[in-house]
This record gives sequence, C-alpha cells and structure tokens, in this order.
Amino acid sequence: MSDAKRPRLGDPQEDVCQLAHRLLSQEGVRKLLCPELVEDVLACSVARGVVMYPEPEKKREARAVPVTLTPCPLPASSFRAAEELAADFHSLMDKVCCDLAWLREALAKTAAMDLICRKLLEVCDQAYNSETGKEPSGDIRLHIMRNDFMFDLQRDPDLAMVQIELNMMAASFSTHCQDLTEAQRYALTKFLGILEPKLGYARVAAALEAAMPRSPAAEKIAEAMALAHEAYDARWQKIGLARAVLFVSTEDEKNELDHRKLELAFARKGLLCLRRSLPGLAGSALRPLAPAEGRRTSVKKPMALIVEGNYEVAVAYFRSGYWPNHFTDGAWEARTMIERSEAVKCPSAPAQLAGMKKVQQLLCLPAELRRFSGEAAATAVAKTFGRQFDPSEEAAKEAVEAAKAEPGRWVLKPQVEGSGELFFDEDIPRILNSRSKDELAEFILMERVRPPTTPSAVLDAAGSAVVRDAVAELGIFGTFVADGDRVLCNEARL
Amino acid sequence: MSDAKRPRLGDPQEDVCQLAHRLLSQEGVRKLLCPELVEDVLACSVARGVVMYPEPEKKREARAVPVTLTPCPLPASSFRAAEELAADFHSLMDKVCCDLAWLREALAKTAAMDLICRKLLEVCDQAYNSETGKEPSGDIRLHIMRNDFMFDLQRDPDLAMVQIELNMMAASFSTHCQDLTEAQRYALTKFLGILEPKLGYARVAAALEAAMPRSPAAEKIAEAMALAHEAYDARWQKIGLARAVLFVSTEDEKNELDHRKLELAFARKGLLCLRRSLPGLAGSALRPLAPAEGRRTSVKKPMALIVEGNYEVAVAYFRSGYWPNHFTDGAWEARTMIERSEAVKCPSAPAQLAGMKKVQQLLCLPAELRRFSGEAAATAVAKTFGRQFDPSEEAAKEAVEAAKAEPGRWVLKPQVEGSGELFFDEDIPRILNSRSKDELAEFILMERVRPPTTPSAVLDAAGSAVVRDAVAELGIFGTFVADGDRVLCNEARL
Repeated sequence: MSDAKRPRLGDPQEDVCQLAHRLLSQEGVRKLLCPELVEDVLACSVARGVVMYPEPEKKREARAVPVTLTPCPLPASSFRAAEELAADFHSLMDKVCCDLAWLREALAKTAAMDLICRKLLEVCDQAYNSETGKEPSGDIRLHIMRNDFMFDLQRDPDLAMVQIELNMMAASFSTHCQDLTEAQRYALTKFLGILEPKLGYARVAAALEAAMPRSPAAEKIAEAMALAHEAYDARWQKIGLARAVLFVSTEDEKNELDHRKLELAFARKGLLCLRRSLPGLAGSALRPLAPAEGRRTSVKKPMALIVEGNYEVAVAYFRSGYWPNHFTDGAWEARTMIERSEAVKCPSAPAQLAGMKKVQQLLCLPAELRRFSGEAAATAVAKTFGRQFDPSEEAAKEAVEAAKAEPGRWVLKPQVEGSGELFFDEDIPRILNSRSKDELAEFILMERVRPPTTPSAVLDAAGSAVVRDAVAELGIFGTFVADGDRVLCNEARL
Repeated sequence: MSDAKRPRLGDPQEDVCQLAHRLLSQEGVRKLLCPELVEDVLACSVARGVVMYPEPEKKREARAVPVTLTPCPLPASSFRAAEELAADFHSLMDKVCCDLAWLREALAKTAAMDLICRKLLEVCDQAYNSETGKEPSGDIRLHIMRNDFMFDLQRDPDLAMVQIELNMMAASFSTHCQDLTEAQRYALTKFLGILEPKLGYARVAAALEAAMPRSPAAEKIAEAMALAHEAYDARWQKIGLARAVLFVSTEDEKNELDHRKLELAFARKGLLCLRRSLPGLAGSALRPLAPAEGRRTSVKKPMALIVEGNYEVAVAYFRSGYWPNHFTDGAWEARTMIERSEAVKCPSAPAQLAGMKKVQQLLCLPAELRRFSGEAAATAVAKTFGRQFDPSEEAAKEAVEAAKAEPGRWVLKPQVEGSGELFFDEDIPRILNSRSKDELAEFILMERVRPPTTPSAVLDAAGSAVVRDAVAELGIFGTFVADGDRVLCNEARL
C-alpha cells in the first residue's frame, strides 16, 4: 500500500523499461499468459462493462468485447508527441469545418461517387444559405474526435509517427479503453510482480501506475458535452421543454454499452439524454427560438429541434449516420432538420465532411494545409502525414503506376467511414485497372505504413488464449468546443 | 445543469414526497413503465457491470442480474435509524465473536444438528487454544456485514423496523446496489421529469439526488480491507513474499462479477488480490512469522498463511464457506489452516458462528444481550428485534403451540446461511410435529413480519416488464476493524 505509492528502490522509469521489454517479447508474453491472468482480465473487464450486445434486441445478454489481454507497449514520447499535436489538429479541423465553400469544391468529385458525401453536401446547402443566415463559423461547434496514428519502421525516427485518420464521427470505445486499461493494469501488476521477483509487487505497481495512467476520456468528453450544452443554454431563451442531449444511434447497435457508459457520464454532469435512431426522428419538429437576453444572432429564423413534443435538443450527438444503411425511411429528412436547427451537432454535416479521406489527402498538400493552419502548426502536423493521393487525379499518375507495380507498398482506402474495408496487394492493381478515373474518386491511395509488430495475447475463436503478432494503433481522444469564434475547450487525453 | 444543482422553486423535501407517492401506487409505476425506461435501466445497469455469469466457466458471457426496474421508496427516517443503530450492532457482534466460551455453549445443540456449525466449532478448537495462545480478542478483526431489516405494519410505528438477520458472512451485492442505484436514478429522472411537468426535469433531478444518494459501499468496504491489511503489515515482519488479499470463492460462482468489482476497488487502494476456492487452497502452507519491531504477541507460534509458495495472505475474505457443498476435498483442512494463521479472516470462524440464527435468537433475551452491550445500546438495538424462539427448547413451548395453531403468523428458518429456504404456513406444523426436540435445534421459529407491499416493476420470465407487489427489505452494509482492543473503524453506509 504505502509501498506501492512510494517505491524506495530503483528508478521507476527503468522499472517501466524492464517491464515493457518483457511485453515486447513473444516468450515474455507467453510466460505471463497463465489461465489466471486470462480470467482476471476477462472477468474484471466484464465487471467494468467492457461488453457488447451480440443480439442488440436482447438487453439482458452481454458478451465481452474482443480485446487484447495484454497491452502493446509504445514509447511514452509517442503518446506525449501525439497529445502535444492534438490542439493544432483540432484547430485545423475546426477551420476546415467552417469553410463550406472550400469543402464543396474539395469534395465535388467524391460526391459524385459517394452517396453519403453527396447527401451531406445537400444537407449543408439546405441548412447554411442566405435564407437561413446560418454559417458553421457562427454556430456552437462541438468536436469529439479520435486521432489514430501508427508507427512506421521505414521512416526517419523523427517522422516515425504517421497519422492514419482523424475520426470526426462516432469516435468510439472511449469508455471501454478506460475500463480495459484498469483491468489490464490490475492483472499485469499481479503477474509481473511474480515474474519479476527482483522488482517485487510494490515497484511493479508503481511502474505500471506511471506507464498506464488512468484515462479520463469519458469524463473529458462529458465536460465538452456539458460546455456545448451550456453554450446553447446561454444563447437561446427557454421554450418550456426539457433540454436534452440526443444520442443518434441505430436500433441494432451492438456497441450500445459504450454509448451507455458515456450517457451515464453525461448524466453525472446533470445532462438529460435520449437515444433515438435517425428514422425514429422523422416525426421531430422545428419550433422558433429567440435569443437569450442580451444575445444577438445572425440566423434569420433560429429553430429549436423538438423531439416527440417533449424535449428540446441542445446537442445532437451522432453515433450513427456514417454508413449507407443507417439512412432508411425518413432518415435524410431527419438529418437535414437537425442540421437546420440550432441544436449543437457532433459532428455537424460540415464536420463530418471534413473527416472524409479526400480532405485528409488534400491537407497533405502544403498550400491547402496553410490555408487553415499557421506555419508552426502546419509544420508540426505535416510531420505525421503519410504520402497519399487521389487516384482519380492526373497528379496521382506516378503513384498509381507505382502502386500497380509494387502493390505491397500501398493501401487503397474507400471514403466511407468505419467500413473497415481496405484493399491491399493484388486487389490494388485489379481495382486501379478496372475502374474509370471518375470511379476512382471513391478511393484514396496511401503509402502503406510498416509498423513494428508486438506480441499480444488474445483469445482465438475457440476462446483459448494465444500469443499473436499484433500491430499497435495509437488513438488519441480529443475534444473541442467553440461558440462562434470563441474557443471554449481544446483538449486531448487518451 | 446548474438548475439541477440549485432548484429555485419548491421544497426539495416536498418534491421527494410527491415522487415517492407516484412510486407507491400501482398506477403510478405502470405509467412510468414505458419500453424506453426498461431499456434504459437494463442497458445502463449492464454497462455498470450489474451482471452475473449464467455459466460460470464461460467468462465472456454475462447476463443482467434480475433486478427491480423501479426502486421501492422507504421513509428516509428508516434509513437514518438503521444507520444510527449500526455502530451498536457492530460492537455487539464483535463482542460476541470474542467470547468463544459463550459461543461454544450457545451453539452446542445447534452443532449436533448442523454440520457447518459443528465443523466451525472444531476449527475454533484447533485455532484458539492454550497451545496456540491465540484468542479472537487479541486478533485483528475485520467484519464486513449487511444488516437486513423489514417493516412491520402490525407493530407500533416506533418499533416498526424489525431486524431480519445480520449477515456476517459473504454480504453480497454491495457493488451491484451501488451501480443499480445509478442506473435507476438516471432513468427515473428522465421519466418522472415528463410525468411531473409541474416539477420539471431540474427539480426532479434535484429531488432524486437527495432521495437516492450515491452509495459508497464498495469504497467503504475497500477502506476497511486496506485498514485490516495495514494492521497486519504493522504487526508482522515481512518474510519476502508479496502480501495479498485472498478472495475465497467457489469455482462455479455465478456472482463472481460482484466480487470482481470489489476486487478492483481493493486494487485502487493498492491491494493485491487472489481468487481461490477452498479445495484449491488445500496445498497452502504455514510459515513462522515474527512480530514487527517494537511489537509483541501472545500467540505462541505465529504463522503466516502461504499460498502456492508465492503469496503471504494478509486478509482471507470468504465469499464461500457457508454452505455444505462449498466443502469438498480438503476444504475443512484449508479452512482450519487459514484460521490457525495470523491472516485476518473475514469472517473468522467465531464471527461466522456469531452470525448464526441461534445466536440472534439468544440475543433477543435481555440478559444475554446485556452481557455484550451497554444499557443504552442494548435498548436501542432490542427495539428492532422480532420475537423468536428455539423450538428445541422448553421455553419455546407456548410459541411452538401457537405456531401449530396459527402457522400464518410464523416463519421457520433453518440455521444454514443463504439457504433461502424458509418454511411458511402448513409446512410449519408438519415440521414441528414430525421432528424430535433435538432435531428442531436446526431451526429458529420467528414471528412473521407483515411488511407493506410496494408496486415494483420487474421483468417476468419471458422478459416482459410487469408491475408486481413487492416487499422491501432494507440492507445496511457496515464495516468494523479492530486490532486487539483498539477499534480502527466502525461504519455503516448503504
């Protein structure tokens, strides 16, 4: 106890390295992987709600989320570097969201190929125009993001961290990461303490406390949500209904329990939450809003979003709406109505568009990046950019030829969010050769990252624990809130 | 938000009464019981780990614990009264534990009929004797208890709260109660806010915050556990092994996830925990201990309990060992070894014996109660005693005849903990008539409590939400730690 807090021997930093070393060797992980560790990690993470609904209509039956039983060590400097870059990345993305004219032009060809991109641009046209007087830059903006990085062995060590994508939409697993970290830290402390008798339990505990800090991601997200809600409350007069956070989800969401833990974190901030699907919101309505005393607005007919006559939506938080089958009957009408309303959208249609891979590719071009970023920030974030190309463009000709010749060095990514469907190897020349130039606007061609592999203990299909080589991806959760040009919060925490 | 914290209108106490009134009527609960409330309570409680293992060997598959979807309101004064009595109850039970001679005599007849009682007395004989020099009063004692009460409509209002039993052993569901309260409070706030438009969401939220306070039970239990561990550390010199809390459980424990949440609360206090079954501890060993510098002991050969050669047990926490089938091969030998060791036992064999129903019945006799309790404390706790009798005794003759004549006014309880098997109505005369006097020592005959029923929303076997009349039992978790005659903690929190 007191020992765990104040190790009297050795340098904690050295202890951390010694423990990380064990987790980086196949043999080290295999030695750790006793049945008791497997049970401890599984049962403790289930107890912390790291579960999903295998059949979403059965709300009583939960199953453990497939997780790694042991963490993949990464240098602490990478975490810090990613955290330090976060504020610049967030400001950049916020500036992109606010430049609708640029987004329209940037995404014109993508829209022709990608339904969601096209429809979101239509939503923008209807919400932000001279008739409504609405502009993204004048709105309250809430971004809840996860910036994903990998490490490339082929690059200069200074440039080894490569941004894979910045999720503006439905960045998930924040609560599960938090809870799994607690379960893993606990189990590792127990078993590394035995395997490293020279360190002993107390020093192992102290080292792991330092190396696996408690993640405040859910609390930070709740704080940002509460800030956005307060900004809405300060802007608009009450109309006599309860104000709520609207979770937009699908009916058959397996990951509902990650949402629910966030919902409870929001409730602890005093926020009222609703869960509705996009089609379930078709019956919602708009009702005129008046600015709060002493506040003015350039919006011509500000509207509140009213759900079922009972709730005024202060923040619409989309955990659905990035995949074509999320948009069944009436869903696009509902999406448009939400955008038209003064409810804070997370993400707004412009923010969701800003998260598209085509935008990421364009921001790799220095001139485009500098449009939205100061020089220092542009230099800092650009260091993490991989080489990427729009295969529908003339400028990508050389890269397209290179990818056909050596497909193993490339990856072809469709625009659609969360598809998980990336194309590698022989699929790349097949697609590049069989599609027209315009059709290729559906994809981004990215130089493949060659990350180091780390041994990682996982359960196989039969439920047996095995050690596999895994690739670590570092996801940094971040939050940003602005009220017009006033930034209220811009934070990154794991 | 700020509204929720500072309601500007109305008296929160009145608001609480208004809400409680709704929860006390069948119609009120039925109105509340929309599918959305059912989903919110289920999903939020599953997300908080209010789950069990339907098949304990499958550590990935969890199922919601069967819970009431709506709480049963009880007067706040009852909660306070039960909390105020707690310290006296705890001291009383601790004094009983320390008087082994009295326990031996009190339980002599019960032991003849009840295997666990008999074996625990044997464990006491082997651990506490002149050869070991051990006495319960000299030990570090940790009690984690749950004192259960019901409310009797037939009694004088001042005496309406009747103690049902004080669980000294494996008091469970502390974490689930905590997490379910959070899920219920959240859902009630949402839906009572709609049903009570005059109060509105903010006042409903404030009233429910006051009426359903956050329970710190798991944290309080972890604090007591850490205190007991520290007392052990202060008493005994280290022998070079990691010191641990031993959770004694069964292999097929469905309620493992309640244990696991406590385990994580212990881990947050820097404690190392092991889970083992009693038969799994058969290979454990004792190793000599020496008092820490400046400490003396009257124990003749103090022994550390060593598990698998790797761990020295500082506290053995029994969540198993109260039911005959917990004691398979080697289990009693292991139980005896644990008692013989200097590990803090929760409960110790004397504490487990003190929790037997026969002891509760004897403490209803004023002379016996005063043996362990000062006058004021005895008067206070005795107010909550129901009338109970040992049907094997001559003194119970009148009560036995009354129970045969009017069985509906009585209940017959076996000694065994957690059996759940109580006998009512026609079973009572059948048993009383068919068993010999000695055989009846297996039971306690208690006057039946007639509690008010409260409408309560539950799921039926098919998973549909229904409103049923339920009976509320109030369980008050409490902790007590003493080092010899020095009391380190004596607390009650829901």
